[in-house]
Amino acid sequence: MRILGVDPGSTVTGFGLVERAGEGRRGFVHVAHGTIRAPRDASVPQRLEFIRTRLCDVIAEHAPDHAAVERVFVAANVRSALVLGQARGVVLAALAQAGIAIDEISAREVKKAVTGNGDAGKQQVQAMVARLLALDVLPPTDAADALAIALHRAQSGRLAGLGVRTRTRPRRRRDLAALVEARTR
Amino acid sequence: MRILGVDPGSTVTGFGLVERAGEGRRGFVHVAHGTIRAPRDASVPQRLEFIRTRLCDVIAEHAPDHAAVERVFVAANVRSALVLGQARGVVLAALAQAGIAIDEISAREVKKAVTGNGDAGKQQVQAMVARLLALDVLPPTDAADALAIALHRAQSGRLAGLGVRTRTRPRRRRDLAALVEARTR
Repeated sequence: MRILGVDPGSTVTGFGLVERAGEGRRGFVHVAHGTIRAPRDASVPQRLEFIRTRLCDVIAEHAPDHAAVERVFVAANVRSALVLGQARGVVLAALAQAGIAIDEISAREVKKAVTGNGDAGKQQVQAMVARLLALDVLPPTDAADALAIALHRAQSGRLAGLGVRTRTRPRRRRDLAALVEARTR
Repeated sequence: MRILGVDPGSTVTGFGLVERAGEGRRGFVHVAHGTIRAPRDASVPQRLEFIRTRLCDVIAEHAPDHAAVERVFVAANVRSALVLGQARGVVLAALAQAGIAIDEISAREVKKAVTGNGDAGKQQVQAMVARLLALDVLPPTDAADALAIALHRAQSGRLAGLGVRTRTRPRRRRDLAALVEARTR
């Protein structure tokens, strides 16, 4: 099962793909990650279309079975919520167009599962994702967030069976923590 | 010049097309209008993809030269801004994909130009749009808003020359008011 995590943003959209390989605790394999940066001089509609096109390329290239996107509860203000919503809309539509099932996961839940701390900073998430996936180079923070989302989804899939969502955060967190210990020993 | 107005919404997205025909004051012709209602039982990503697909159909069928979309300044709260943003994002990306130039116009500006009152209600806009375009049947309110946006854009294009945006609201309002008087005499 190959999972695509996406962290939508109007300036930078991060994506990351992981694959579950086998049933063991080390059963996560890094597939790919990257960031989509729309050209600065483009108009808002052109930037949105750029995000859409590039994400469609990623989907075509890596053929994910599932996708996970950050659920948004809060935004600084109405203006930033609208701008984030626009990027999020094209991402969700592109995934639906490809017929990929999507889970929404809160950032807090992802951070807690990956680092043990729901308030973890971007650097902490970045470092833990690199450890969990045995990456030699730290991924960019936006791509690291996307990989964390994908990892969380992969982990919950392993625990709960495919297609079933669970919210058993403590158990998932313990599992990921044990995995990190094994990796970093 | 054929202009597509769009009023994006997560539940209902209205669209309306008008054409400038000749240089006279009566030079607006109604082309088409309608509403896109995503199936209620569909997921959010599926609904967004539905809006995108249907709008692409409208663009393919009517081949507009320009588009105009309501600019959003306010929303009730962050949550509604995010949801509106998502619908708006797929609309803007679909228009950019088709290579159509887009103007953003504030709702207040559109209402003022079409009814003479920036605080006009939906029914007032609906009635004025029907008058201006000599429609026998009132269009649905969301489609009427979209037609009003298209009319406003058509009017500003006539005044200012193609591709140039103007913000000379009073003059535009007078012109539309004169047009309505001529129509309703």
